[in-house]
Amino acid sequence: MRAVDLIVKKREGGALSREQIAFLVQGYVSGSVPDYQMSALAMAIFFRGLSFEETGFLTRAMIDSGDAIDLSDLPGPLVDKHSTGGVGDKVSLVLAPLAAACGCRVPMMSGRALGHTGGTLDKLESIPGYRTDLSLERFRQVLAECGYAMTGQSERIVPADRLLYALRDVTGTVESIPLITASILSKKFAEGAQSFVFDVKCGSGAFMKTPERAKELAVSLVRTGASLGRRVRAVISDMDQPLGRTAGNFLEVREVIDGLQGRGPADLMQLTLRLTAHMLVLGGIRGDLASSEKLCRDRLADGSAWALFLRNAELQGGSVEVLLDPSRGPRARHLEPFKADRSGYLARIDAYRVGLACGLLGASRARKEDPVLPEVGIELLRTTGDPLRAGEELCLLHARDPERCAEAQALLREAVTISPERIPPGPRVMQELEADALGKD
Amino acid sequence: MRAVDLIVKKREGGALSREQIAFLVQGYVSGSVPDYQMSALAMAIFFRGLSFEETGFLTRAMIDSGDAIDLSDLPGPLVDKHSTGGVGDKVSLVLAPLAAACGCRVPMMSGRALGHTGGTLDKLESIPGYRTDLSLERFRQVLAECGYAMTGQSERIVPADRLLYALRDVTGTVESIPLITASILSKKFAEGAQSFVFDVKCGSGAFMKTPERAKELAVSLVRTGASLGRRVRAVISDMDQPLGRTAGNFLEVREVIDGLQGRGPADLMQLTLRLTAHMLVLGGIRGDLASSEKLCRDRLADGSAWALFLRNAELQGGSVEVLLDPSRGPRARHLEPFKADRSGYLARIDAYRVGLACGLLGASRARKEDPVLPEVGIELLRTTGDPLRAGEELCLLHARDPERCAEAQALLREAVTISPERIPPGPRVMQELEADALGKD
Repeated sequence: MRAVDLIVKKREGGALSREQIAFLVQGYVSGSVPDYQMSALAMAIFFRGLSFEETGFLTRAMIDSGDAIDLSDLPGPLVDKHSTGGVGDKVSLVLAPLAAACGCRVPMMSGRALGHTGGTLDKLESIPGYRTDLSLERFRQVLAECGYAMTGQSERIVPADRLLYALRDVTGTVESIPLITASILSKKFAEGAQSFVFDVKCGSGAFMKTPERAKELAVSLVRTGASLGRRVRAVISDMDQPLGRTAGNFLEVREVIDGLQGRGPADLMQLTLRLTAHMLVLGGIRGDLASSEKLCRDRLADGSAWALFLRNAELQGGSVEVLLDPSRGPRARHLEPFKADRSGYLARIDAYRVGLACGLLGASRARKEDPVLPEVGIELLRTTGDPLRAGEELCLLHARDPERCAEAQALLREAVTISPERIPPGPRVMQELEADALGKD
Repeated sequence: MRAVDLIVKKREGGALSREQIAFLVQGYVSGSVPDYQMSALAMAIFFRGLSFEETGFLTRAMIDSGDAIDLSDLPGPLVDKHSTGGVGDKVSLVLAPLAAACGCRVPMMSGRALGHTGGTLDKLESIPGYRTDLSLERFRQVLAECGYAMTGQSERIVPADRLLYALRDVTGTVESIPLITASILSKKFAEGAQSFVFDVKCGSGAFMKTPERAKELAVSLVRTGASLGRRVRAVISDMDQPLGRTAGNFLEVREVIDGLQGRGPADLMQLTLRLTAHMLVLGGIRGDLASSEKLCRDRLADGSAWALFLRNAELQGGSVEVLLDPSRGPRARHLEPFKADRSGYLARIDAYRVGLACGLLGASRARKEDPVLPEVGIELLRTTGDPLRAGEELCLLHARDPERCAEAQALLREAVTISPERIPPGPRVMQELEADALGKD
């Protein structure tokens, strides 16, 4: 077998076999298939695509390039949720303790903020003392004790993905649905859960900007998952505007605390409950979404999800005192309002620009080695559909110093649309997909 | 400027500017644009193509990566011919002295045999003593003294092409018309001629297997040449069957001698005269093809082309004695006939398989470092349209030893089609293209 022949085969629209894909991935990790062949192959895949079966072979080969975590000795259904990333997306922090309170076991390995998107690890680390670098042994212990655990990805999981992602990043081959699918699924499948809900974000603040692209990725995730015998569902959710009322690490933790105590904003809680309900159905806790949502509401109301959140923070080194009294947590030194420049109704707050503005304030990274500030971010004082008077405060910038605010203010000015008529906010959940309903490949 | 952004631009179908293409080529040669970015770009170009203008920018940038030879101080129009390669293609050896005898100056830099195709340098070197490694100074002297000179390509010409070709070879990006165009034109334009005829071969023995692909390349060569202000014509010629009656190095030299002495096979001489006539028109020697062909016939008949051939051989170290008495040149130790297995008419001799059979006998190389045998090859005793009786000798294998013949015989068996009805041979010249007739890009 020669890599160049396989590149030509794919270039001409042919299908690669399980053995051929394994040869390429193994060769790439071992060095016998060089970067320049893999990048040419990635570009050929960009143009020709991969079938769901081929994407499954690629996912499998990538998993096999490293260690896979086996958690099957733990009791309870192992269910995970993964989001493709957005602005103000703090769902995981509410969903994990809630799903655990309902009887799921949630082994969650997350990423960091980069560019305009936030990262679950950075949000968690804004809680004083909270550790996200758990050893595998400690990860298991926390998971066993409180039903969920949250950590960064192990270096030993899917090394092929790290190599391939870095290569795609510099060769213009990031935006390929099958390559994105294999990257997401290989990491998730290697992390030990049995079934998965994917929250595919759609809109300006998301990686997928249009409903068509989001649907394409969602279908690919569900069908490829099915081709590998995994139970996978996908929810396409609106990320054209920030989720909830805050974007920024500890600001979002405060909103999570509100959510777990029954005071969360409607859009955040609706989406979170829906995603959690899918987890309960996948895990066999309840037979349908309606009764699953009911169980979630009960576990929020009886305080059991909130209790697990506190227990998890304690196990992972986070300050329970701060969580019980968030005013003792990270606080911005400089607060500055952003004001409406005309009267009317708030029609839209562009998530991408809000994300960029948060980044300018220090909530995420322009480069991997940049530090992240826990206390900064943007608080939305008004939401879509609200009436506004010119000069009224619309957002609050939480900054370390005034210097950083000028550019963020300008971005917010571009982000906000005020219209003379009221446009009611749309639903967050745009579509829900599962393999059985999609039929066979 | 970042290479990845230019890759994405091309991937999305955008047009690259002169500066962007120069940045990529210069970066590639200097090492700041790595192989893995260039191979991804090449694959994007495979799918998206390049306009003739972009192909011109690429050609220019590649020329600028090395030295260009300036021969403009020599008297007479500098005209060259380049073939895309075939089986039995000894045109250059007749055409160069003929064009020189008609008043052109022909600076010819050629390549070697590889795979199923022959190479002009190997044919020339089968003449005992003939040198094809002329210094630039000696090349000029020979060119000044006998009107033409033949040598290998200098290492200092178009280093970008050597790098890029090696990369394309292992990344499945060889078969891209704009990349092929820039590779051919950059080398030819750097070699010092002012105008060019390209013989684009078409058929089983050629790189372009179909008339459509051959036309695509011919148009690309002519239009890209025009975009760079060069006078370029292209002739598409049939390479579905070997050209002339011989394939193999010294066997072809013998046929060249016959041709220069007025005894060449019809197909070889027709194509050679037509290509030479185009050179005369490009060089301004005559105003039209008909009178140019007439002049060529005169220069063959009066022996002046033959005299220049002998003079060139003398200047380049080749044995004039052998050329005057070819029976003193390389001769195969083992001759073996290939016989017709049925009666009928010879309908086709597949050039690709004949080329492979010659390669098996040692006339060309499987790998660059293999030696080439001057005396071996295949002689066609019958040609398309000839009647045959079962058992009659159809070809003669010239081999170094009998062991090499068995596989070659089997290939010839596959190569030959004998039909009950006579199918007359078609013309070699399939189409002729020039920039003015094609209109503007």
